[in-house]
Amino acid sequence: MNAQAPWNGTDARPGRDLSPEAVRMLIRAGRYQGATAGLAPGYVQGNLVILPKDLAGDFLAFAHQNPKPCPVIGLSDVGSPRVPALGPSIDLRTDLPRYRVWRNGELVAELSDIRDHWRDDLVSFVIGCSFSFEEALLEDGIPLRHVACGANVAMYRTNIACAPAGPFAGPMVVSMRPLKPADAIRAIQITSRFPAVHGAPVHLGDPALIGIADLATPDYGDPVAVEDDEIPVFWACGVTPQAVIAAAKPAFAITHAPGSMLITDKRNSQMSAF
Amino acid sequence: MNAQAPWNGTDARPGRDLSPEAVRMLIRAGRYQGATAGLAPGYVQGNLVILPKDLAGDFLAFAHQNPKPCPVIGLSDVGSPRVPALGPSIDLRTDLPRYRVWRNGELVAELSDIRDHWRDDLVSFVIGCSFSFEEALLEDGIPLRHVACGANVAMYRTNIACAPAGPFAGPMVVSMRPLKPADAIRAIQITSRFPAVHGAPVHLGDPALIGIADLATPDYGDPVAVEDDEIPVFWACGVTPQAVIAAAKPAFAITHAPGSMLITDKRNSQMSAF
Repeated sequence: MNAQAPWNGTDARPGRDLSPEAVRMLIRAGRYQGATAGLAPGYVQGNLVILPKDLAGDFLAFAHQNPKPCPVIGLSDVGSPRVPALGPSIDLRTDLPRYRVWRNGELVAELSDIRDHWRDDLVSFVIGCSFSFEEALLEDGIPLRHVACGANVAMYRTNIACAPAGPFAGPMVVSMRPLKPADAIRAIQITSRFPAVHGAPVHLGDPALIGIADLATPDYGDPVAVEDDEIPVFWACGVTPQAVIAAAKPAFAITHAPGSMLITDKRNSQMSAF
Repeated sequence: MNAQAPWNGTDARPGRDLSPEAVRMLIRAGRYQGATAGLAPGYVQGNLVILPKDLAGDFLAFAHQNPKPCPVIGLSDVGSPRVPALGPSIDLRTDLPRYRVWRNGELVAELSDIRDHWRDDLVSFVIGCSFSFEEALLEDGIPLRHVACGANVAMYRTNIACAPAGPFAGPMVVSMRPLKPADAIRAIQITSRFPAVHGAPVHLGDPALIGIADLATPDYGDPVAVEDDEIPVFWACGVTPQAVIAAAKPAFAITHAPGSMLITDKRNSQMSAF
């Protein structure tokens, strides 16, 4: 335990000045189990998917064929809880605030530590997250309403079919951000530079064209108003692989809990393709 | 005269296999006075504006402040009809199929040769043209309805004010292309790479937000249908400087005639910023 850690004995949010590693060490020590949005600003956060190796090949094939909703930014060796490319000190069994354990597609436990569930045949996937591109948008002066409201982004199942692989198949899930048209154009430019965190939008304008009947009733997250001078802009979303895994009902899987991400040592700017 | 030129004594269109210089030489010889769209494919075409030097500084300032509608890709010395950066053999007095001569904002002549109007105080501006980015869009497989119809692109005056400079001021004129949303996103990526030929769109979606009351009645060019599964996408247009010059009513000016552009030796790909 680090006596210097700014911990006051409660689940107070770690300070925004803490390094990614310092935040992970607080989490590893059981001192923080909350949402990670806004922690270690400037650094990449990722979704976590852990599967037995007999499903890992199919899942990697699914990701390869669906890079916009499922951009793999970290991949472990079989049985290893390490992803050195994202941070040499990362231990995937302890360093996320909360995990979900799934059996046959059913959520069976939500835990702050998965050491008791670890197996030698597990393969871990870290999947890019829109937090990275949202930071780039905000830094460019583009307002994001869900951030301003402190809400979760609105997400919707679409009629865009993912390319299937083995048992993994299903529709693409998208997140929606309402933007003024000039901001939408700028946001397309900015997010095009970040293919590893969902990249450019997949759709804009009429939601019905991608099978969304009502923007006011998202399938995940919180609804957000679209003003008359705004256009809804839709990005492929990391919830897609989670929904696909849930539908595939693997005998065993572990994921992060929603909003409780892996904080990596990579800077968001390092995810830029150019 | 080049006896090898594929000229049959009429104004037949030059062959698409001719080099930019070969096309210019046919035009210089008076053998072609038609539209230049589709000639010397792969090479940059430009709008031409010629002004007395006492207005040239203000016009260059206007262009500098409004780079999206008025991207200057070539600039002559005072009194010179040459723009070596765009082609060593170019003579701006003879190498465009048709010119318009203006006095006090009034069109006074349309000619195929302006040697008789040349003056030692003239400065020439070559301004990038959407032909360059349209070629990139078509090569990427994005359909452009006005091209498929053989029509001129639809253009509209907007309520977006250009930044004024000296006597040059007025609203931005935009061109509109209806695109499916995914193609619109891809078109924003592609045209962002071409800042010297208008670059990324300035608007998409609701035309009323930029002061366009009715897409069916363009201010210039031909109307084109926008289908239910399409979104109108608006680019800054090279007609803007022409409209601004007409409104400023300079004592003397020469421009190209609509559709009758300067064909340069630069390749469209060389206009890409990255």
